[in-house]
Amino acid sequence: MIQLFDLATKYENVRFSPFCWRIKLSLAHKGLEWKDIPVFFTEKHKLPTPNDQKVPVLVDGDTVIHDSWDIALYLDKKYTDALLFDSPESMSQSLFIKHWTEASLHALISRVGIMDFYEAQPESEQDYFRTSREARFGMTLEQWGGDSERYKVELNQAFQPLRMTVSKQAYLGGVAPNFSDYIVFGTLQWLRCGTSVKVFNPDDPIYDYRERLLDLYDGLGRSGAEYPSN
Amino acid sequence: MIQLFDLATKYENVRFSPFCWRIKLSLAHKGLEWKDIPVFFTEKHKLPTPNDQKVPVLVDGDTVIHDSWDIALYLDKKYTDALLFDSPESMSQSLFIKHWTEASLHALISRVGIMDFYEAQPESEQDYFRTSREARFGMTLEQWGGDSERYKVELNQAFQPLRMTVSKQAYLGGVAPNFSDYIVFGTLQWLRCGTSVKVFNPDDPIYDYRERLLDLYDGLGRSGAEYPSN
Repeated sequence: MIQLFDLATKYENVRFSPFCWRIKLSLAHKGLEWKDIPVFFTEKHKLPTPNDQKVPVLVDGDTVIHDSWDIALYLDKKYTDALLFDSPESMSQSLFIKHWTEASLHALISRVGIMDFYEAQPESEQDYFRTSREARFGMTLEQWGGDSERYKVELNQAFQPLRMTVSKQAYLGGVAPNFSDYIVFGTLQWLRCGTSVKVFNPDDPIYDYRERLLDLYDGLGRSGAEYPSN
Repeated sequence: MIQLFDLATKYENVRFSPFCWRIKLSLAHKGLEWKDIPVFFTEKHKLPTPNDQKVPVLVDGDTVIHDSWDIALYLDKKYTDALLFDSPESMSQSLFIKHWTEASLHALISRVGIMDFYEAQPESEQDYFRTSREARFGMTLEQWGGDSERYKVELNQAFQPLRMTVSKQAYLGGVAPNFSDYIVFGTLQWLRCGTSVKVFNPDDPIYDYRERLLDLYDGLGRSGAEYPSN
């Protein structure tokens, strides 16, 4: 069976890696079965060879694929039913949507959620998490999270192009979801499962869009519990 | 022949409406001929009936179409060679890219370019332009433009998802441009033809991307002169 290496938290049922959620929805989209293998940040030596120290990693028989984008391309090439992209242009434009989430949303989510991500690590992981992130940010976790109310407002604004689009059509893919929706869903799950931050009111078109995505594939997205402090 | 109502400036050869540029490239993409009819802001009574007071308007025989998005859909339905979208998902994702330009870029361009847009009006238009915009903004044009250096930096950052994408592929549509590229090109032309603001260095992947787009269709985009103060 396909194996998917995912990111563990100290909570049995909480998974917040946005990149891994992209792939879980994609596997379900194709009707494939797989086994999740969660590993902690300090357990990267448990990842299969070749090991680039990052999740997701997909293992399909003798094939090991890294990087969520490359995994999506692999899945469409190998399993040609229920394509994740219906055309070359759709695939190319999905790369833009991937970069939009990463350039416009992820840095802000890293800010608003940092103390929650830290808290979700078991005690044995917290030193590594703090030290590695503080070296990367050049400041303490508390300083990085800093003015979280301001970042939350900026994050809500940064979602505006998505809001305008899903007020007019059910999915970025149109009447049905495609990989670009799973990219955005990964980001929404990072917020929902990894943080206690509430960005969307129930009257926000993005709230309904997320509900539609959470309902897909027998509620696969809801199997990722919300952040426990809620 | 198809007629396209466009926005005039006091310069014979300067057209800066981003929405009209979307359609000019789309018509050329399909190999269609058309006649441009530029009108000033106060000449909206010259637009064809039914008149919603906005450009672009496309007149094709007895058919009058408003709104650049609806014009693109019309063109693909009526002229089925050289489609602007190669699939339903590609069309749906282009709507996201349209909203990205409008939500994330246009407000900032309106700020950095406002005094240039004003200056590009003939004297007979400037009172109308100032009064209507100041009512909309709730402040003077000078205040709206305000801290233009800060807005220019923010605008450069807001282009980041495009920058990341076109460093990896020639166009948003992939190996060839589609309507999502013409949407972004409209925005780039608004900056290039409507303002003296230089946002992209020659080593920026967006600079090369714009050059590729300017070269299309015998240099159609270059027929829109750069802003005269350069």
